[in-house]
Amino acid sequence: MSGSEKYGTVHGVGLGPGAEDLMSVRADRLVRGTRQIAYFRKKGRSGHARRIAQGLLRADAVEIAMEYPVTTEIPLADPRYNACLSDFYAECTDRLLAATRSGEDVVVLCEGDPFFYGSFMHLHSRLSGQIPVEVVPGITGMAGAWNATGVPITWGDDVLTVAMATLPEEELVRRIRDTDALVVMKIGRNLPKLRRAVAAAGREQAAWLVEHAAMPGQSVTRLVDAQEVAPYFSILLIHGQGRRP
Amino acid sequence: MSGSEKYGTVHGVGLGPGAEDLMSVRADRLVRGTRQIAYFRKKGRSGHARRIAQGLLRADAVEIAMEYPVTTEIPLADPRYNACLSDFYAECTDRLLAATRSGEDVVVLCEGDPFFYGSFMHLHSRLSGQIPVEVVPGITGMAGAWNATGVPITWGDDVLTVAMATLPEEELVRRIRDTDALVVMKIGRNLPKLRRAVAAAGREQAAWLVEHAAMPGQSVTRLVDAQEVAPYFSILLIHGQGRRP
Repeated sequence: MSGSEKYGTVHGVGLGPGAEDLMSVRADRLVRGTRQIAYFRKKGRSGHARRIAQGLLRADAVEIAMEYPVTTEIPLADPRYNACLSDFYAECTDRLLAATRSGEDVVVLCEGDPFFYGSFMHLHSRLSGQIPVEVVPGITGMAGAWNATGVPITWGDDVLTVAMATLPEEELVRRIRDTDALVVMKIGRNLPKLRRAVAAAGREQAAWLVEHAAMPGQSVTRLVDAQEVAPYFSILLIHGQGRRP
Repeated sequence: MSGSEKYGTVHGVGLGPGAEDLMSVRADRLVRGTRQIAYFRKKGRSGHARRIAQGLLRADAVEIAMEYPVTTEIPLADPRYNACLSDFYAECTDRLLAATRSGEDVVVLCEGDPFFYGSFMHLHSRLSGQIPVEVVPGITGMAGAWNATGVPITWGDDVLTVAMATLPEEELVRRIRDTDALVVMKIGRNLPKLRRAVAAAGREQAAWLVEHAAMPGQSVTRLVDAQEVAPYFSILLIHGQGRRP
């Protein structure tokens, strides 16, 4: 691309788990200072990242809302899922290229940490090499969740396994059996499957479900006491029991 | 304990991976505002957490330096290791109780996130129920490390395993074989063993070693190109290769 030196920078900024003051000083400064902000959201929703940054935006902020064409309506295994999302990320990339063409930066608001299971990664890989892209790490949603329980997640030589509830049930059972500490994300409609897997691994009494960590409405419950449905952003935890001098 | 309502609060504050502006807004406010700060350090060193906070401390700050009686001099498996550290944490607890007795708070500076393999956890468990204890989560050292590589750590349904290099070699091999993405911490003198384990698992070409992430002197090298020794705070990474629409 010729003249790329004129393009503004796209900043993928980790906002942390949800509380406004749990974003980093660097993130806070970038979000307050930018005119152009972008964020992902589900159609018809205000967007979780957008809500976290609500109190920090400039009065003249220009918003680039990137609305997922699909979230859970098409199964992950269906080839249409990948094709549909691929087109969507290409279109978002074009929008960010257009927005930075004048030399002005764009801040992309990202929940948690941008490089940890985040949607921004799909823009990062498409933009890199074309225009300047910077990433600001953030406190992960899982750190917000274990902090909400008031109990450390890992001690000494504990092994921590992070797995998605979208995995097959038997794979979840195997992973839960073979770890000291556990984090499971992307729960939502996978909760009944995850419950069966935790029970089959014999760890039902040790499992906690955290919803809306570090946000209003935060809830921490034992898995055995949890409702039958959980929000997509809920996180399941099993705390490690390692060496404690 | 009678009269506990008069005690100040002990705040275990996550400072993040190393850069001053990667601590949270909440952490920044607490560190700047407190008169009493406490931190762990190795005898004769300035202390990693203390260095991160260097530019934020009040001129009248009172410092409580908690110096490990032992770090790697006694093997972990030796019973003297646990006994020695147990006495040390009890003594630190007494110092924090004494410092908060007047009603004044103490901020304990913690690298990364306090509830993720941190020393503060050993004070938290001893102080809880006696006096008010609050924890501020932080960006983990591992998030600083994967951000330093410029490559996302996990995509789609990737499983992430976090393991300590202090584990037995055959256990490391098994864990490295059985994961998509990998983080290994507590490396230091365990680097030769870890190298053999990564090679035995057939993943030498995919492994990166990050030293001093988010700090001056940050270094990111392929494991195959790395020196024979690594600092204790270095982190080994293997990036996941999951679904990318």
